[in-house]
Amino acid sequence: MNLNPLPSVILEDAVRQLSRLPGVGSRSALRYALHLQRCSEAEVRDFADAVLRLKTHLHECRHCHNISDTEVCPVCSSPKRQRNIVCVVENIQEVMAIENTRQYRGLYHVLGGVISPVDGIGVGDLHIASLLQRVREGVPDPVEEVILALPTTMEGDTTSFYISKQLDGTQVKITTLARGVAIGDNLEYADEVTLGRSIAGRVPFNR
Amino acid sequence: MNLNPLPSVILEDAVRQLSRLPGVGSRSALRYALHLQRCSEAEVRDFADAVLRLKTHLHECRHCHNISDTEVCPVCSSPKRQRNIVCVVENIQEVMAIENTRQYRGLYHVLGGVISPVDGIGVGDLHIASLLQRVREGVPDPVEEVILALPTTMEGDTTSFYISKQLDGTQVKITTLARGVAIGDNLEYADEVTLGRSIAGRVPFNR
Repeated sequence: MNLNPLPSVILEDAVRQLSRLPGVGSRSALRYALHLQRCSEAEVRDFADAVLRLKTHLHECRHCHNISDTEVCPVCSSPKRQRNIVCVVENIQEVMAIENTRQYRGLYHVLGGVISPVDGIGVGDLHIASLLQRVREGVPDPVEEVILALPTTMEGDTTSFYISKQLDGTQVKITTLARGVAIGDNLEYADEVTLGRSIAGRVPFNR
Repeated sequence: MNLNPLPSVILEDAVRQLSRLPGVGSRSALRYALHLQRCSEAEVRDFADAVLRLKTHLHECRHCHNISDTEVCPVCSSPKRQRNIVCVVENIQEVMAIENTRQYRGLYHVLGGVISPVDGIGVGDLHIASLLQRVREGVPDPVEEVILALPTTMEGDTTSFYISKQLDGTQVKITTLARGVAIGDNLEYADEVTLGRSIAGRVPFNR
């Protein structure tokens, strides 16, 4: 459906703004706009306020750059976390995924992306300098292990390699996530690269 | 991915609001929220304002209930439209679809839905009274033809039937859209109901 011309400039504006959301086309944006138009004014005001507060009230944790309501995030300020392990991730979605496993009790460092010359994202656009400073100077806490949990893409691997190179000469232990066939997956259907990595990285069998 | 607990109440609020949009789940809502959080404050303010203006600045046309920036919509106020034909549609999306054909030069009447006892939508919840008044009293213009362009569902058919019954005793001509196999469609793949309707409603061949 051709959306031009919409019957109203105000509707057109709203559709344009809503279609800026990732993965939202003009048809979905129109559906969202018409839905909002049918809501009560109080509901739409709550909607707009909640969105605006993302900019006006949300902090980025001073230490790990995770999203937080406070200057230091709940993970960094928790006395129960192991403070000498830092898991380096691309975005806060990965923090949430790892937190949901309940297997990790260390801290995080959110880079805000990975090095990608094609997209014009360089070292300076990411929170890499603060990571290096955190490890080298041991502030706020001495770091003994850095877990590189970045995506297994060219960009992710480049970023991991860059960080590990920059930490040459420090005493810090650098590790990465184990990769292999997922629990419950049939070997027959696993992709070759993953299965190959599972074999190369085989571990002692627990009897 | 389990989204609970999110690291921030503000983020949680925004995700809850965004997931109220039709067809948006919590995972998409999180993606939208994180996208907005990465935008500049000015951009997010523009976004929130455009959405809010849907309630504060948008009008419903006094005559046809279409969405409009003005009290009377561009279609109803255009001197180029044929004022004695009114096409009755469910929502403004249908107005846009019909306008895009450039085949229709009459006016519209947007019901805002169809009669649906299951969803608790009755005659009083729709702009049916104003349609009947428009036809019976000829205000703002005398109406000679009403085109019922409602969906071919039980609810749409019920609504069409109700309107046509209410207009018994008036001189108005009541028509509906031609239904049949779409232009370019192969008969082999057309559904039986549509093909049956195409045959029953066959029209003279233009030689």
